[in-house]
Amino acid sequence: MKLASKRQGRDGALLVVSRDLANAVAAAQIAPTLQAALDDWPRAAPALAGLYEELNAGTARGVFALDQADLDAPLPRAWQWLDGSAYPQHAALMAKAFNRPPIEHEFPLMYQGMSHRFLGPRDPVPFMSEADGIDFEGEFAGITGAVPMGADRQRAANGSALVMQLNDWCLRRFAALEVRTGFGWLLAKPACSAAPIVVTPDELGPLWRDHRVGATLEVRRGEEVFGRVPGGEMGCGFDELVVHAARTRELCAGTIIGSGTVSSARYAETGSCCISERQAIEMIAEVSARTSYLHYGERVRMAAFAPQDRTPLFGAMDNLVARPAN
Amino acid sequence: MKLASKRQGRDGALLVVSRDLANAVAAAQIAPTLQAALDDWPRAAPALAGLYEELNAGTARGVFALDQADLDAPLPRAWQWLDGSAYPQHAALMAKAFNRPPIEHEFPLMYQGMSHRFLGPRDPVPFMSEADGIDFEGEFAGITGAVPMGADRQRAANGSALVMQLNDWCLRRFAALEVRTGFGWLLAKPACSAAPIVVTPDELGPLWRDHRVGATLEVRRGEEVFGRVPGGEMGCGFDELVVHAARTRELCAGTIIGSGTVSSARYAETGSCCISERQAIEMIAEVSARTSYLHYGERVRMAAFAPQDRTPLFGAMDNLVARPAN
Repeated sequence: MKLASKRQGRDGALLVVSRDLANAVAAAQIAPTLQAALDDWPRAAPALAGLYEELNAGTARGVFALDQADLDAPLPRAWQWLDGSAYPQHAALMAKAFNRPPIEHEFPLMYQGMSHRFLGPRDPVPFMSEADGIDFEGEFAGITGAVPMGADRQRAANGSALVMQLNDWCLRRFAALEVRTGFGWLLAKPACSAAPIVVTPDELGPLWRDHRVGATLEVRRGEEVFGRVPGGEMGCGFDELVVHAARTRELCAGTIIGSGTVSSARYAETGSCCISERQAIEMIAEVSARTSYLHYGERVRMAAFAPQDRTPLFGAMDNLVARPAN
Repeated sequence: MKLASKRQGRDGALLVVSRDLANAVAAAQIAPTLQAALDDWPRAAPALAGLYEELNAGTARGVFALDQADLDAPLPRAWQWLDGSAYPQHAALMAKAFNRPPIEHEFPLMYQGMSHRFLGPRDPVPFMSEADGIDFEGEFAGITGAVPMGADRQRAANGSALVMQLNDWCLRRFAALEVRTGFGWLLAKPACSAAPIVVTPDELGPLWRDHRVGATLEVRRGEEVFGRVPGGEMGCGFDELVVHAARTRELCAGTIIGSGTVSSARYAETGSCCISERQAIEMIAEVSARTSYLHYGERVRMAAFAPQDRTPLFGAMDNLVARPAN
């Protein structure tokens, strides 16, 4: 099934969305918000799936034409956001870009990020200064149900409720400083933007394989196609990321687990899902980087596609890089 | 004023607590939970302060004798927990303990931690394995109202609503591995335990100075006094920690900002607020560390005091190190 959150209050109002994204129906009688549905997932999921079937069959009541401009992030705020770095090609290029040895690690790389606000798919995104090195990072993510501490892979796989897509904005000036402290990223990682539609893994059909999203993530910077990168090359799947996250803590329902920047070993053909990775490729090929970070007024668009199909699997993101409001 | 949350549902029920911690009164008519009060702080704070005055004057209605055993963490879950490392003496000893050069940093050290569950002041604390190096960290923390991105020191100071005390449990085996990745702590930092009472800074009187908590944090491991450490030696105050946290993001109301492990330059007399720091002191004095990490069944108690007064300023914490439930 496909779900979304209409703009309403702090947590949005839960909608069930038709397979072709053309129509939607309010799901308030099942759960008022996506967080409420996830908190009660074993009961809510079958009820939402039933409404989804009715919507697709044309038998649901209260159906309306979906305007994606009315949608907020699926979880406008979440209790936990844990972002992995699961694409080995991205990690290898970033190590070269920052002239660092590859990070030695015996388990998946993951940090805890800001989760009290996920910006909507068409919200302007405020940044304090262009001098901070404003970059985007196109990612896929899983949303979990409640997962107990020490969950094994089977239990973690069962705990993966939904799949989403997001842009994990990054301020490279601070990223370079913060990685050296060992404390992880704080200033470097302001609020993420989220694509509007979340889907159960079965909606992805053959594109969901080994707990990875095989769709192609298309990233545009203004009119330029910056990357068309296949998502299937994660070094470990979302099930393993969930196992890692839950090793010493329980995960609350609605925990968002990110893939890290989508990246491919065929990067010369596919392009990249962040500026910094392209800069690394330029440095390797041409000694110095040509591509600049973002400026105020630029637009970044992201959408994921199945082969030979231009329906965006998670809806469309279109975000303006903006000055702060005050 | 002094506030607490009675165990009730996921977010507790807001209480106003008398100055001597003997009595309390429900604050539901002002705000049902502490988070709700913080979300509406400019309106709720004066109303709560009024009820606090009535409670202390003996004129409030519905007063009952406070049993601290009924209390949950003040915020049983929070949208954001950002922990600093603001005691230079602690940082210096930890660098020695792990044989690392001191961390170079041009701004306060801070990471984002798990906030979807703060354990209650007397809850057992489950850990997966004794082999993970179970340690406690006694800290003070500030709770903010809503703080805009880019707030200056004055605005950050005004945004500091409440002061609390907590135990930031740490798994040293993972801390040592995770600090090397640069991604910060995830496995090393499971849920914190919280002291039951939060107070406005004015309640601390002369112990609140330069945005630091001058109280003495007393930490007991079983029957042993592990540390009686004065809290005033932070390298920067909570106002500066809030400015740092808000440099590239807005802070939601109810953001908890931690001091890091309380530590003193007179550590030989005061003792320590975590095992790892004592191990460092032993290594410096005696080459190798004698003190072990925690075992299942051990109890850790923490409370903060003003000079010549045995009323715990934030109530008493008493936590059992426990095996996981399943």
